[in-house]
Amino acid sequence: MQEILDELVSGMRQEPDWGEVANYIPELGSIPLRQFAIAISTPDGRLFSAGDADTPFSIQSVSKVFTLAIALGRVGDQLWHRVGREPSGNAFNSIVLLENEKGRPRNPFINAGAIVTTDEILAGRTPGQALAEIVQFIRAAADDTEIHINKAVARSETANGNRNFALAHFLASYDNLKNPPEMVLGTYFHQCAIEMTVRQLARAGRFLVNAQGSPTIISRERARRICALMMTCGHYNGSGEFAFQVGLPGKSGVGGGILAVVPGVASIAVWSPGLNAQGNSLLGTKALAQLARRMGWSVF
Amino acid sequence: MQEILDELVSGMRQEPDWGEVANYIPELGSIPLRQFAIAISTPDGRLFSAGDADTPFSIQSVSKVFTLAIALGRVGDQLWHRVGREPSGNAFNSIVLLENEKGRPRNPFINAGAIVTTDEILAGRTPGQALAEIVQFIRAAADDTEIHINKAVARSETANGNRNFALAHFLASYDNLKNPPEMVLGTYFHQCAIEMTVRQLARAGRFLVNAQGSPTIISRERARRICALMMTCGHYNGSGEFAFQVGLPGKSGVGGGILAVVPGVASIAVWSPGLNAQGNSLLGTKALAQLARRMGWSVF
Amino acid sequence: MQEILDELVSGMRQEPDWGEVANYIPELGSIPLRQFAIAISTPDGRLFSAGDADTPFSIQSVSKVFTLAIALGRVGDQLWHRVGREPSGNAFNSIVLLENEKGRPRNPFINAGAIVTTDEILAGRTPGQALAEIVQFIRAAADDTEIHINKAVARSETANGNRNFALAHFLASYDNLKNPPEMVLGTYFHQCAIEMTVRQLARAGRFLVNAQGSPTIISRERARRICALMMTCGHYNGSGEFAFQVGLPGKSGVGGGILAVVPGVASIAVWSPGLNAQGNSLLGTKALAQLARRMGWSVF
Amino acid sequence: MQEILDELVSGMRQEPDWGEVANYIPELGSIPLRQFAIAISTPDGRLFSAGDADTPFSIQSVSKVFTLAIALGRVGDQLWHRVGREPSGNAFNSIVLLENEKGRPRNPFINAGAIVTTDEILAGRTPGQALAEIVQFIRAAADDTEIHINKAVARSETANGNRNFALAHFLASYDNLKNPPEMVLGTYFHQCAIEMTVRQLARAGRFLVNAQGSPTIISRERARRICALMMTCGHYNGSGEFAFQVGLPGKSGVGGGILAVVPGVASIAVWSPGLNAQGNSLLGTKALAQLARRMGWSVF
Repeated sequence: MQEILDELVSGMRQEPDWGEVANYIPELGSIPLRQFAIAISTPDGRLFSAGDADTPFSIQSVSKVFTLAIALGRVGDQLWHRVGREPSGNAFNSIVLLENEKGRPRNPFINAGAIVTTDEILAGRTPGQALAEIVQFIRAAADDTEIHINKAVARSETANGNRNFALAHFLASYDNLKNPPEMVLGTYFHQCAIEMTVRQLARAGRFLVNAQGSPTIISRERARRICALMMTCGHYNGSGEFAFQVGLPGKSGVGGGILAVVPGVASIAVWSPGLNAQGNSLLGTKALAQLARRMGWSVF
Repeated sequence: MQEILDELVSGMRQEPDWGEVANYIPELGSIPLRQFAIAISTPDGRLFSAGDADTPFSIQSVSKVFTLAIALGRVGDQLWHRVGREPSGNAFNSIVLLENEKGRPRNPFINAGAIVTTDEILAGRTPGQALAEIVQFIRAAADDTEIHINKAVARSETANGNRNFALAHFLASYDNLKNPPEMVLGTYFHQCAIEMTVRQLARAGRFLVNAQGSPTIISRERARRICALMMTCGHYNGSGEFAFQVGLPGKSGVGGGILAVVPGVASIAVWSPGLNAQGNSLLGTKALAQLARRMGWSVF
Repeated sequence: MQEILDELVSGMRQEPDWGEVANYIPELGSIPLRQFAIAISTPDGRLFSAGDADTPFSIQSVSKVFTLAIALGRVGDQLWHRVGREPSGNAFNSIVLLENEKGRPRNPFINAGAIVTTDEILAGRTPGQALAEIVQFIRAAADDTEIHINKAVARSETANGNRNFALAHFLASYDNLKNPPEMVLGTYFHQCAIEMTVRQLARAGRFLVNAQGSPTIISRERARRICALMMTCGHYNGSGEFAFQVGLPGKSGVGGGILAVVPGVASIAVWSPGLNAQGNSLLGTKALAQLARRMGWSVF
Repeated sequence: MQEILDELVSGMRQEPDWGEVANYIPELGSIPLRQFAIAISTPDGRLFSAGDADTPFSIQSVSKVFTLAIALGRVGDQLWHRVGREPSGNAFNSIVLLENEKGRPRNPFINAGAIVTTDEILAGRTPGQALAEIVQFIRAAADDTEIHINKAVARSETANGNRNFALAHFLASYDNLKNPPEMVLGTYFHQCAIEMTVRQLARAGRFLVNAQGSPTIISRERARRICALMMTCGHYNGSGEFAFQVGLPGKSGVGGGILAVVPGVASIAVWSPGLNAQGNSLLGTKALAQLARRMGWSVF
């Protein structure tokens, strides 16, 4: 396995096109483009990794997997009254469908749906308490206390978050926000600013693997359903393509990270900050496709 | 297994809501609502079935799985220049995205995409030859020569096919149709009018199972990718829900049939003519969800 | 007046940008770009003209003004059950709104709405009879029997009319077409292929002028309302701009003609085959803006 | 004239359907429904009025006419780089087109466009200064110093303004806002909360009449163009209908007021707080249609 990962990293380093780093905030825009890391965790937590596997990166929208698990743990299927379960076919920050569907976001992995999910976690609590739960959930899943929020990134997101403010106010205009937009987004921007290495992220993803020895933080049924959502909605309007090329449930973030799950077998984290046109890690996707093919790891 | 299927059928027969039969053509609208059948085929073709398993039904859009496999066999990845691989988020017969995306349908399982796929199969041939290949492919897959086209249904589709004529002419206006709309739709309506029993359909789906003993009509890689498309796009704007509830790749038809695949394990066909709001079989979906849960057959 | 028109033509001939000729059919695509004509008719039919004023051109969508008048004459306000009275904000051949609004076109001046209007004129008659009425109406309005249909253009429109076939079938799928799509489009393409000179068109527009001496083919009230629709919807998604720049009700055609009305004063026809991005005559619009300003002819 | 207005009011009082009062803020929702007023001002300021003509009402979006005139006075045609001149075909607060057109609102009379206009007036100034200019402009136009802002309404708009906050943040995300969303909306909500009687509003509209004796606050050319925009865009997605029924340029507000202009002849203000489905005063529109027909006041 280690050999395969090393070869994969060598191959990636020779790719001519590394995509483009997200540049909507300076903290992300200044990250060196030519970085790549991959880590695979077995259900019981043994790790294989290669590349820049100890470099922390901003997990951004990968956090939506964890907040979805937390929100479902708190309110169960009632969450689905506020957010749907269908791929949107639109960009991650599109507001068009939100108007057509009267304020109920298509799924919890586009921004609007993730904002609703975080709003649910905030119910009856302060942002500090909610964030503590989120970080604690991830640390427990990764079995690693050295996972933190990068506050400079969170501040910068807030300062450049007009599109998300628009989404939050829009949700509020349809009465689909229980807390003030500023409070929800304050929490949301901090959850996105959590930093992890691929080694940490791969281990944190084990609760979705559904295997002997993987952590049972949530029920097997719920883990399956989160994986189903990752498969159909995890890469915005590139979800169909990811399913087609990789064949595994995954969730990407604009920081260049992707968490993918091989049900029953392993949890995989890749990171490369350059993005493709849909906002998903260009080399991360490519590496996962190669790995999945080489290992025969498609779910199909 | 037989016992499980019998129980499933008993349970279904007691469901209060059977949905509504498609009524856009009299041949479908007159079908008695309260029918239900299920069949499971092992990779090597052994069958378990229950309910109205010997009643032929109109496979309609389930045929899109077979024509996709045929078109990919003929032109390979060139097909993807003409049709995409993303869920549409819209109804099966929506024309909105087609305008926004300049005549390239989102995926081969919505009507517009399936029309393009059939157009590809027609290249350089007559409708009769193309239909012979389609029927022959399905018969070979099912290992059953008693599979036929219901010509009265095909005629009725033609007579009531304004929406599909609109789609075909729209594709043509973007130069994404090689043959005349009337010719393509003539073929398309006949392919949709193929009739099969669940026993036949379950066996015909084995080529997607990717197991020891399943027919190798197409490569394992291609079968996986077709399954990925079934997972993300197989149920129109109910695809996310089907993945969430059932956790298996599937393709539904407006005749009430659904073909689902348990990779490496089995091919399943269900039929119940009553549809839900998204145009997918109401009890068929429900039965697959129960069966998948009972057997632990989610891909996740 | 003659002097003003001569100056206007001189100025236009020195314009650097003449736009682009419509090229969706060869008959229009082969028309020499650098042509310009203008004619003004007083209510009682006296004509002033300059430029290529005796060159016939394809009136195309300008015909929609006449067919609207005819359809209203036949069924009155019942027409509005089938077509709206609002600007669409979309391109002339867009199908998006038609889906959102369930087959009722926004207004009678976009293609879909004009197809419905022609369908209404066809009710209970043959295409030949309907076309005879349309041509007869225009001849009577222009007081000129030398107005004809260019059958080669009509044939070519039919051969290249996929987008309009899509619209017609789409309308039919919502039961908003009383006659078969082929019959309605056959009539529609012939009405669009009527040829007129600016001198003929200016005289034909007098029935909308509402002045002493202008023909009273339709009631003053109806003429006003047709002018209102020309003002808000006459130039597709360039209607607001035309109202802003010219300040007169007008209707353009893809052949490069525009009919404009100065209520109570005059009827104006301009023609220059080069179009702007919205499909309206580039120099025709510019000339009307200059003329209106020079003469103080805004309705505002 | 007085007699005509008295008859008009009598007729209105007998209408069975008065529409529905806007209820998104309590200050508007509590206004008694059955009120109606009309006033006509000659260009030199003589007034005819009837009904509740001395009752002040919230002018709301009618204020957009005045802020457009002010902004054009400050930056001229540069304003059009930031906002378009086409009818939107969508609801007044729709955000869909804004995404499709990358943050440039369709016209200055939908909310997004009016927010941009107010942002332009704010350039280099405090909200207090901007509001002082707006109020001063209206007072000068009406020749009446007793025109004020209702601060309770402005506060309530702010507290219930999620949809407008969404629009403003969305504009900001496309860099089409020079000032902070909160500052722009603070100003915008106050401008909407200006209260006037129909007598004041009719006089304030004279600067658009373009007649001997009417105030020349702006150039004749600019007044005409503002009237053109009122004609094509002044009633949101009911603009075509208003042009069709009334035939005059007009601008409505959700408070139930409408300002209409008879070019060269008169300025008209009507008020009745009950709205139709498009958010325009139901009886106000009806009364204007009757008056225009009776007086022969269509621009066409």
